[in-house]
Amino acid sequence: MDAEQLREYGHKMVDFIADYYKTIENFPVLSQVEPGYLRNLLPDSAPNQPDSFQHVLDGEVAQLILEFIRLHIQAKILPGVTHWQSPNYFAYYPSNSSVAGFVGEMLSAGLNIVGFSWIASPAATELEMIVLDWLAKMLKLPEDFLSAGQGGGVIQGTASEAVLVVLLAARDKVLRRVGKDALEKLVVYASDQTHSSLQKACQIAGIHPENCRLLKATSSTNYALSPEFLSETISQDLTIGLIPFFLCATVGTTSSTAVDPLLSLGKIAKSNGMWFHVDAAYAGSACVCPEFRHYMDGVEVADSFNMNAHKWFLTNFDCSALWVKDRSALVQALSTNPEFLKNKVWFSSVLMEILILPKSQKFLVTVLGSLSAGEMICTEDRNGLMDSENLKKSSSINPLMDIKLISSHDLDTASQANMVVDYKDWQVPLGRRFRSLKLWMVLRLYGLENLQCYIRNHIKLAKHFENLIAQDPRFEVVTPRIFSLVCFRLLPVRNNESHGNKLNHQLLDAVNSTGSAFISHTVLSGKYILRFAVGAPLTEEKHVNAAWKVLQDKATSLLAESL
Amino acid sequence: MDAEQLREYGHKMVDFIADYYKTIENFPVLSQVEPGYLRNLLPDSAPNQPDSFQHVLDGEVAQLILEFIRLHIQAKILPGVTHWQSPNYFAYYPSNSSVAGFVGEMLSAGLNIVGFSWIASPAATELEMIVLDWLAKMLKLPEDFLSAGQGGGVIQGTASEAVLVVLLAARDKVLRRVGKDALEKLVVYASDQTHSSLQKACQIAGIHPENCRLLKATSSTNYALSPEFLSETISQDLTIGLIPFFLCATVGTTSSTAVDPLLSLGKIAKSNGMWFHVDAAYAGSACVCPEFRHYMDGVEVADSFNMNAHKWFLTNFDCSALWVKDRSALVQALSTNPEFLKNKVWFSSVLMEILILPKSQKFLVTVLGSLSAGEMICTEDRNGLMDSENLKKSSSINPLMDIKLISSHDLDTASQANMVVDYKDWQVPLGRRFRSLKLWMVLRLYGLENLQCYIRNHIKLAKHFENLIAQDPRFEVVTPRIFSLVCFRLLPVRNNESHGNKLNHQLLDAVNSTGSAFISHTVLSGKYILRFAVGAPLTEEKHVNAAWKVLQDKATSLLAESL
Repeated sequence: MDAEQLREYGHKMVDFIADYYKTIENFPVLSQVEPGYLRNLLPDSAPNQPDSFQHVLDGEVAQLILEFIRLHIQAKILPGVTHWQSPNYFAYYPSNSSVAGFVGEMLSAGLNIVGFSWIASPAATELEMIVLDWLAKMLKLPEDFLSAGQGGGVIQGTASEAVLVVLLAARDKVLRRVGKDALEKLVVYASDQTHSSLQKACQIAGIHPENCRLLKATSSTNYALSPEFLSETISQDLTIGLIPFFLCATVGTTSSTAVDPLLSLGKIAKSNGMWFHVDAAYAGSACVCPEFRHYMDGVEVADSFNMNAHKWFLTNFDCSALWVKDRSALVQALSTNPEFLKNKVWFSSVLMEILILPKSQKFLVTVLGSLSAGEMICTEDRNGLMDSENLKKSSSINPLMDIKLISSHDLDTASQANMVVDYKDWQVPLGRRFRSLKLWMVLRLYGLENLQCYIRNHIKLAKHFENLIAQDPRFEVVTPRIFSLVCFRLLPVRNNESHGNKLNHQLLDAVNSTGSAFISHTVLSGKYILRFAVGAPLTEEKHVNAAWKVLQDKATSLLAESL
Repeated sequence: MDAEQLREYGHKMVDFIADYYKTIENFPVLSQVEPGYLRNLLPDSAPNQPDSFQHVLDGEVAQLILEFIRLHIQAKILPGVTHWQSPNYFAYYPSNSSVAGFVGEMLSAGLNIVGFSWIASPAATELEMIVLDWLAKMLKLPEDFLSAGQGGGVIQGTASEAVLVVLLAARDKVLRRVGKDALEKLVVYASDQTHSSLQKACQIAGIHPENCRLLKATSSTNYALSPEFLSETISQDLTIGLIPFFLCATVGTTSSTAVDPLLSLGKIAKSNGMWFHVDAAYAGSACVCPEFRHYMDGVEVADSFNMNAHKWFLTNFDCSALWVKDRSALVQALSTNPEFLKNKVWFSSVLMEILILPKSQKFLVTVLGSLSAGEMICTEDRNGLMDSENLKKSSSINPLMDIKLISSHDLDTASQANMVVDYKDWQVPLGRRFRSLKLWMVLRLYGLENLQCYIRNHIKLAKHFENLIAQDPRFEVVTPRIFSLVCFRLLPVRNNESHGNKLNHQLLDAVNSTGSAFISHTVLSGKYILRFAVGAPLTEEKHVNAAWKVLQDKATSLLAESL
């Protein structure tokens, strides 16, 4: 690590990336390579000598990285890249990059800290808490989700990890009540439009596959989950002795941006003692605009809420914001400290779990278990080692209770201690990057009003695309457009649905193989549907128009062929 | 996203990071802030207007980011940073940054793709497969771990995620054999020196806590797991009807770099039909040197192997390399496709699971289940939609078997298909960053020989520190130094062990509070031990000497006080 080499290489790489954005429209949006293309371009093993060897001898350091960029990145990597940042990218959902997000990522990579606990880099923990409070306020989340109380926010890598950790928190919470042998009786509910990550979380958590109820949502509700259907299913499950424990609702499904009725669903969950999770991975961003906030109405009864700042909020991947009302439920499911305490060593024998106490010998004891999460006891270390049995004796804690020790420099009151969390206990991995930097820079350098304008502009462009479709009788819009996604299709000829599916599949392939636009598809009620998702930061009206022109032209050719 | 703004901001940020590295020794290594310091420095909510507003009007774009760096990053964030890149950082294990790793991260953030499947950016999948094959060869891993066969490598975020996914693969594999209701009988084995991530993985996977056997390792084996003890414990468990299914061994434990005897342990695992995982998160890097490779002997009987390139291999966090011999076991545990097939729709109704077929209508069918993973059948799509039942009929697949469909542009033979994997099915999250770029750049720009020199230099410095300790009779080295970690302590006065623990705890605090070095500690056999982990890229002999001087001086003061 040579600072001057970093400077030279870094400047060249910045220029390459800036030039890439300037010329991004020259690349086919969807990579057109064949499988295995790269294996043919790279050697079978890593070099023994660095690429740089000769150049270092010649003293031409900057030349090295320029050559590497030209010979390797441009020639070999870029052809295999699908350009998610292209203004002609309309597939899946967007993955936003921005100047603020990008330099935030640079800073995080430059500091390269591993923020598993507060002391491992206090700024990483504290900035994350603060910035997620900011974002919660922008979304008008209930106060229960803020870090000042029993809740708080955390950055997960993806929505998959967010739903997994809350499912685990909910699972362990119910199992503490009904006994751990009841795992096979636990039931999860969601619509069949829910993202597959829920199902994957159930697989991981050991929920029986047949107890993962993906209830059919139909066009009659615009693919939203019906509260009546949910109620009936829960009743049936209760009568056969199963234990409903988790409901996942979605604001903006992946297929068609369907919005589940949060309030009605949440009440059913609450009346059955279930954990209620709201997945707003995509559409959450739109809810910073007052005119879209009502789609989140009912979030006040939720236990957890998730939105992906890396999708449509200008924060580079990955940055998935998760809030919970009861952070102790997360910690109880994901902390390994209680087990170490059972081993009667509170200085755990596994190093990475150890908290450091640089200035003081005071400790804070958080009592989990049957006391409420806010109750705490301060105790003092007397001989440098204390086992949990002694601790229980000295502090008159119920000896059957799990205890967690939290270190702090100089804690005078328990309330101060609330300022310190160890995010390792809120997530699956131990290590974590300093991801709050990029979100912080996006919020500060753009501000709420610009972010609202950004969202509104994309929604306006999606409306524009919807209008274009309405003017061509060969096409139809399939589900009502709510945010920036339009679900549409080429109408089948002579009402032949099977042929219609084939036709739209061919249209998708024809458009994507031009390289001038990239769209994706879904299936709703057995129909093959095309998706046009506006949301790439560089997209303007001219790009929407150009993509529509390609769609029309390819449709004309296909219809002529199929006559 | 404005390319010229990205260029200006990017250059300023590069300069800031280069200057940071030049002046890194001016900062206290361990952050000296109090809990909650940042809350006092930042506003309660995000700004409505961007910081940049006035400057943009004035046309002073570059000024903006300079002010942001000065007013916000330098004044508020840096005081709360614990400087993992400081040459005086000797705590935990290192988290390496390098020029190549840093510009690789920049490139990844610039492209900002989400590589969940091959088509989402073919280069991301293919480069990862190739680079992990390169690294496997550098480590002389058995050929079974290479992607040409049934195995292959994948980049996980952390070793925690690596052990979780292989535990899930092993769990589901054994449950397919013995029935899913046997979950509560499954038993995991490891030494009590194993990283706590194993225990966390067990919690997540629903393994009963009392079935997670952390067998006591003592100083008699230098804290390595005893094969005899393992054998006995497995026998006892078998006699009471439990099902041993997973063994985790470690090469270089977190506490003291203990090395478990892989071959003897692995043979026991194999003879009991268990999955054998090897965690070499830290010490794996050293094994690219021929003289250290023997610590991995026995890996040939392992099912999976993990090393963290982000620790001691110059690749910025996060980059945890995992190899498996049977990738189909991972896919079966972590893919959600089989469930969609059971729903008789192979075009899954959840969008992000859909594979795109831009150029062809050919599909590749990989048959999982009781056929071997290599057996494949090509079939053709006839009407744009096909359900798994029809597929089974048309291809004479056992109707009870799970089927996975893999798309490809134009697959002529099954062997070609082996080149396409969808890494989303090898990990917990769906989305994934383009992490192979930084590892690729590290391997190419430095080359194997330089990486070996890099490792050897740190080990030499650790030996040097060991020699310094040996010359001071007040101190002792507690466990044999194997790699670049030295476990040592100040000897207790008058053999008073309890006071010795307090003394070493005080010494740790005293050293860390100077800000001139950062060390951490562990507990071995009830003794409080100091850890001196060499491994930061900038560390030179003078830094080791300076840290030793601080340790000696603080020890002198403490001993004087305690008289």
